[in-house]
Amino acid sequence: MKIFKTINETKNFLREQRKSGKSVGLVPTMGFLHEGHLSLVRKSVNENDITVVSIFVNPAQFGPNEDFDSYPRNFDRDTALLKKNAVDCVFAPEVSEMYPNNFSTKVTVNKITDYLCGAKRPGHFDGVAIVVTKLLNIVGPDKAYFGMKDYQQLKVIQRLVKDLNMDVEIKGGPIVRENDGLAMSSRNTYLTQAQRKSALSLVKSFDIVQRMLDQGERSAKSLKEAVHNYISGFEHTSIDYVEIVDKETLEPLETVSQSFLVALAVYVGKARLIDNKLFEVKRC
Amino acid sequence: MKIFKTINETKNFLREQRKSGKSVGLVPTMGFLHEGHLSLVRKSVNENDITVVSIFVNPAQFGPNEDFDSYPRNFDRDTALLKKNAVDCVFAPEVSEMYPNNFSTKVTVNKITDYLCGAKRPGHFDGVAIVVTKLLNIVGPDKAYFGMKDYQQLKVIQRLVKDLNMDVEIKGGPIVRENDGLAMSSRNTYLTQAQRKSALSLVKSFDIVQRMLDQGERSAKSLKEAVHNYISGFEHTSIDYVEIVDKETLEPLETVSQSFLVALAVYVGKARLIDNKLFEVKRC
Repeated sequence: MKIFKTINETKNFLREQRKSGKSVGLVPTMGFLHEGHLSLVRKSVNENDITVVSIFVNPAQFGPNEDFDSYPRNFDRDTALLKKNAVDCVFAPEVSEMYPNNFSTKVTVNKITDYLCGAKRPGHFDGVAIVVTKLLNIVGPDKAYFGMKDYQQLKVIQRLVKDLNMDVEIKGGPIVRENDGLAMSSRNTYLTQAQRKSALSLVKSFDIVQRMLDQGERSAKSLKEAVHNYISGFEHTSIDYVEIVDKETLEPLETVSQSFLVALAVYVGKARLIDNKLFEVKRC
Repeated sequence: MKIFKTINETKNFLREQRKSGKSVGLVPTMGFLHEGHLSLVRKSVNENDITVVSIFVNPAQFGPNEDFDSYPRNFDRDTALLKKNAVDCVFAPEVSEMYPNNFSTKVTVNKITDYLCGAKRPGHFDGVAIVVTKLLNIVGPDKAYFGMKDYQQLKVIQRLVKDLNMDVEIKGGPIVRENDGLAMSSRNTYLTQAQRKSALSLVKSFDIVQRMLDQGERSAKSLKEAVHNYISGFEHTSIDYVEIVDKETLEPLETVSQSFLVALAVYVGKARLIDNKLFEVKRC
């Protein structure tokens, strides 16, 4: 498995691979890998001749008061996991390699970023958009893989790639959960044992939504209130948002019909956790 | 010569060309071609196996009170000229092909756009950046060619391509002038005969700068004032800016030394004309 720190080495290696007709899959990550990442890696290894995993904690997507400095890192463990999973190439640049002096370009995806984390984390998706644009240009993959836990991110990147006419297929992988249902996240490592229990309220709240839907509830307001009240009832929780939105535009809905997304962001202790679920309203 | 209106046709054609190992040059234009464009076309034809010329009057780079609607167009003449110059492929999309409904991505190059036309035409270089990013992704050229009359544009695009890690060499071509010195521009067609005479004041003002330099003048303020006064002395002229700037950062200079750029934007009648010249201060 190749491990590259520089853009040039990565480009040169992949140029040769593509010349010999090999297809390339990219799994962008911020490292501290878990089964969520590895499920995407395995998908890429299955679907492409060459799989590249990038490990880069991207400062551009963290706000000034967010956890860039404390974000968990474990490069040796990550590379061991990737080697075991038959990855061909790891791209792990320093910040100065990605954003050298005089770097001055910004990529913004509008509209779809007006909601959810886009509304709560100003600049976050600009940071995602610039780093993904760069990674896609550096690696030039046929397919790139993103987890659906970051549902809005997936939609933003699909929009970006379409708008910029980039030649890559953006694929989403399903949320991978712990045995008890907690969505896997590198940030789960921040949780104390007590907080870990409260963190389960996110995924459990989806059961409440399903039960209310089954009972005929169609008001987004009522559904959100129920979720809000349920999660707030747990210690250590502080809700950032509970939203019910159109699954394509991410616009808030007033009444649910057909399919829709419930999206949550909740601080549990110092960990800001997100989770989401797609629901279908069955016609009678 | 292929003429494509759609992104897909263009991509498919060029994918095949690249597969067979052919190099691709791109000359992006807004049409109404003159010798300035054609000099770039010939350079591209010389340096690449396949030359693509795009013709697209890009609404995103025009301000609300600018001349998008009246910008001169002559598609039949343009394609005849390109055919005569051995161009392989013309990409001439409609606005809706480049910016379909739901288009929502913006590309901004900061700092270098704080000056000159960037300061005078808010949003202009965002429009340039988005269309060039798209064109480069659609065509995937090895080299792309831009005229140095739009000196700042060239610098912005070089910055953009570097920041986004795009695999293309951006090449500038020298300003092509009419016999009397007027820089060629599609907008020269707006000039009446009387205005055409006044328009010569732009290029002639560079002689004043050279003369003052030869006489030892090093104050940017004095040089700018002389140019300003000279051009203002002509009928139909209204100066948008006269600037003396660093040729790389485009930051205004107070004192000139080594090499620097004189950049002008002047309304002559309704035509907003730009011109520029690089100067060298000779060491004694």
